[in-house]
Order: sequence, then C-alpha cells, then structure tokens
Amino acid sequence: MDGQRVIGVDLGGTKILAGVVDRDGHVERRREHATPVTSQDDLLAGLDGAVEELLDDAVAAIGFGIPSPIDQKTGRAGQAVNIPLDSSIDFRTRMSERFGLPVGLENDANAAAYAEFHFGAAREADTMVMLTLGTGCGGGAVLDGRLYRGWAEFGHIVIEYDGLPCQGTCTGRGHLEAYVTGLAATKLAQQVFGPAVDAHRLVRLATEGEPRAVDILDGIGRRLGAGIGSLVNIFNPELVVIGGGFAAAGDFVLDPAREIVAREGLAGAGDRVRIVRAELGTAAGLIGAGLVAFDALR
Amino acid sequence: MDGQRVIGVDLGGTKILAGVVDRDGHVERRREHATPVTSQDDLLAGLDGAVEELLDDAVAAIGFGIPSPIDQKTGRAGQAVNIPLDSSIDFRTRMSERFGLPVGLENDANAAAYAEFHFGAAREADTMVMLTLGTGCGGGAVLDGRLYRGWAEFGHIVIEYDGLPCQGTCTGRGHLEAYVTGLAATKLAQQVFGPAVDAHRLVRLATEGEPRAVDILDGIGRRLGAGIGSLVNIFNPELVVIGGGFAAAGDFVLDPAREIVAREGLAGAGDRVRIVRAELGTAAGLIGAGLVAFDALR
Repeated sequence: MDGQRVIGVDLGGTKILAGVVDRDGHVERRREHATPVTSQDDLLAGLDGAVEELLDDAVAAIGFGIPSPIDQKTGRAGQAVNIPLDSSIDFRTRMSERFGLPVGLENDANAAAYAEFHFGAAREADTMVMLTLGTGCGGGAVLDGRLYRGWAEFGHIVIEYDGLPCQGTCTGRGHLEAYVTGLAATKLAQQVFGPAVDAHRLVRLATEGEPRAVDILDGIGRRLGAGIGSLVNIFNPELVVIGGGFAAAGDFVLDPAREIVAREGLAGAGDRVRIVRAELGTAAGLIGAGLVAFDALR
Repeated sequence: MDGQRVIGVDLGGTKILAGVVDRDGHVERRREHATPVTSQDDLLAGLDGAVEELLDDAVAAIGFGIPSPIDQKTGRAGQAVNIPLDSSIDFRTRMSERFGLPVGLENDANAAAYAEFHFGAAREADTMVMLTLGTGCGGGAVLDGRLYRGWAEFGHIVIEYDGLPCQGTCTGRGHLEAYVTGLAATKLAQQVFGPAVDAHRLVRLATEGEPRAVDILDGIGRRLGAGIGSLVNIFNPELVVIGGGFAAAGDFVLDPAREIVAREGLAGAGDRVRIVRAELGTAAGLIGAGLVAFDALR
C-alpha cells in the first residue's frame, strides 16, 4: 500500500476512541477518552484533544464516526440522541479548518458497517446490513458494494406500533432500539433478578442455564428478528452483521432472531440471509471512521 | 425529444395495464386486460398478448412493472404475493428473446415511484419514498436522484411485532400491508357497517361526517404513519408520496399519518418531511415501466 495514514475517531455516548488507521484497516496508537457530555463546546474540545494527540505530518485526513444522523450535503450532524451535538455547527468545515486536513464525517454505525464490509464479517458480501447493539442501536448498510451514506437509523424503525418510548431526545414509540440494546436487556433483567443484574450478568445466567434469563434473551431476539425482517424486505442483504457490546449475547439472541426473520422475509429471503456476529469488535467504528477519512481524500 | 417509443406494462393483481410511452412520460394507446391468475403459463401468455397488440417498428424496448421482489442481477421475479409468478423463469431473458428487444424489469411500486419522481408529485424532490395502497402495499424509493433498484418492499416492514398475518404467500406478521391497504380498510369497515361496505364506501361515509368511519381511517393513518416514520429514519426523504386506489382516503388517512411521523422521525425529520398524494393516478406504474424500458436502452 501507499503508506498513507489517517486518524479515525469513533465518538460514542460514553467514550471517544481514536487511532491512526492505514489502508489495510490496521490501527496504531489507539487512544480512549471519556466523552464530555456537559455541553457541545466541551464535546468539541474533547474531540479536538483526541485528534491533537495523534496528529503528525504523516496524517493525511481525519474521519469521524458520530452517533447522529448525518447530512452529507451540509456536513452537519443532526440532533444526537445521547450526546450534546446538533446541526447548529458545520462540523465538517469546522474540523477541516481547525486541522487543515480533509475531513470525512459519517454516522458511527454506518462507519462500523463500512469497516465490517471491508475487513470484517461481511468481507465476502456485496450487500449487507449491520446493527450495533450497545447503549443505543445503530444501523448501517452497504448496498451493491457501496456504503449507503443516508441515515440508515435502523434502531429507530418502528417494530411495535405505539410501543415502548425511546430514551434521550427521540420522541418515538416502539422503535427497535427500545427492545434490543444492552440497556433494554438490563431493564428486563432487573425486573426479574433485581437491581444488581445487568445485561452482561443476564447473558452469563443464560449460559449457566437459568431458564428465565434464556427467556428474556429469547424475547429480545424475536424483536430483533422483527427489525431485521423489515430490513431484509427493504434491502435483501446476503448478510446481517450484529455488533456492539450486547452482541455478546450471541445465539441466545440470534437464534430466535433467525426464526422470526425466516417468517418475516419475502420470497425466501428470510431463510437465505445469514445473521452473524461482527468480527472487528470495538475497533469497527474507529476503522470505519478511518475508511471515511480515506474517502475524503478522493 | 428523439421520438423514441417504448412499451410499458404494469402487471397488477387484478389487471394488466399496457401502453406506448415516450420520453416525456406521455402514454398512447393505453390498454387494459384482466390478469390471468390460473397459472404462470397463463399469466405469461396474458403479458405476451398485451405486448403484441402494441408492438410496431417504432417500439425500441419493453419495460415491465411486476408485483414481486426483483433480482436485477438475474432478471428474475421473486415469488409474488398475489399472482402466480416466481423465480423459476428467467423473466427478462424470456421476454427479450421473444420480442427481440431490450427489456427492463422492475417491481411495480418501484416503477410507480420512478414515474412520480420524474413526472409527478416528486418532480422537485431529490430523495423520495413512495407507498402504493391498493389490494397490497408496495414501496419504492429514489435516493439522491437515482431509483433504488433493490427490493424496497415497504409493505412488508413490521410495524406490529407478532401482529396481523399477511395475505397471500407472505408468512409474516404485523407487516404494514396488513393495516393500510384498501383491503384492510374494507375488513375494518365491514366489522362496523356490515358486509356491503367497502373501502370506497368507508371513505364516502367519512366525508359525510360519520364518526366511526373517520375513526377507522384515523387508525389506519396512524399505522401508516408508523411505517412512514421507519422509512424517514432510514432514508430521510424530503417527500413521501402515497399512491394506489386507497390514496383516495386523502387527509382522513394522511393527517393522522403526519401526526405519527412527526413523533417517530429523528432530528426533526418527521416535521420536515412532506407527505402528499401521488399525481399520476393509475398510470404511474405504466409510465414507470416505460422509464425502465428507456433505461434498458442505455
């Protein structure tokens, strides 16, 4: 390869991951910082700091993965659900002027999907959909080999008319995100097992054979399947990649999801589509932000 | 324009509409036939007949709008929900060889969306989504000025986990189609007003101020809004176009839909997006099939 390097920054609700990324998706000098959530100015200062400590003459561009819907025409991030960021600032221009480098901007889950497509679970696929299950639920898609650069906010598709309210600034009801995240799993687990049990412990209990824990994960998986079924009927992907921390629930969630997807998918697509776990782990968003930075060089 | 003409064929569950289409979207010699539903062979014979009666030396290509998910790579139509057609035949090659002309193939609702984008309600838009409400519910999308040529089977997104079963060959539950079509409206109307009342009469009753009729349409509109809300969060369209016969319900359905979309849409998109009726009426699918035929010439 040409030896070019970029900085990738993955902005999450709780932490900022940043690193230097090469064209093969390798990450060097990976750094982690707490996400400042006190104000937009503090948040921007936190991002600036994360970039500055990695910046050197070898860096050709910067890419940001942001947990907001992005308007690629204006380079602005729409109102984020979990962090203090909105479209009042021209994010791309601000960063580009501050660092004197080309800047790419993408939704964090779109970036993760892009990384899994190039270097992870979907590297053999042509059309893929990704869902990230963490504090929230993000989505991304690669269609016929090209990253879909629109919203792809798959966590905010309605799977239950008039259902559970979303968290944060989202006023919607019955969105996928309200049912399938680690946060949702923690809430359900605490109803049954008490306040000390979180999503991680729930998965451990299921692994140990606790039937109520298995049941909770089964219910989450079936609702995840309803959401994936919708996406199958929209995009007909070969592969659906499940990432984010709560993907650790594995087949406790994915098997019931597969059952529902088989039922919901048109024309046999629900049987054909493969639903697999992401392979790049917590680095996916960071690597994807790097790919977005390389795209900004073109 | 260059005077070129194509044949557009819109295959519906009950009728085949065919006509000669020019590059400005004008239709000449429009013809209508009942759709043969007894077998795939009968159906193909019906399509052949519809083309043959329009074919002359001025026709440069043929386009078909088909109520199935289409695989553009293979040129095959997937299992249709309402008609006897499946992927056992190479539809595009068969038609191209039979008539000795380039053949384009699209899902019928994708074709209708394409027509509304070029010549109808969305002619000023850049990104639009269309839903057709008829016997079934079809979907199509134009993203950044380009027809999305994947499935876009928006009638089969889940809006109610484990909800109402679909009709036909679809095994899904709680799909948008089960709630928002003319057929769904007829079922709901008959529960309240008896077997003589269909969707048309229901809309008339609402127009006359019958509160139970208004209520039924309101409930349909709110569920339509849940489906549109999902699509807004996926595609962030400027415009959502509602076509098909049941679009005649107009604001009795669209106003409650707008209310729900405002609630479900992220980052203000639910307030920004305009939800309007289609303008091309029953000709949209036919004109769109013509556009697909012109694309097949390139």
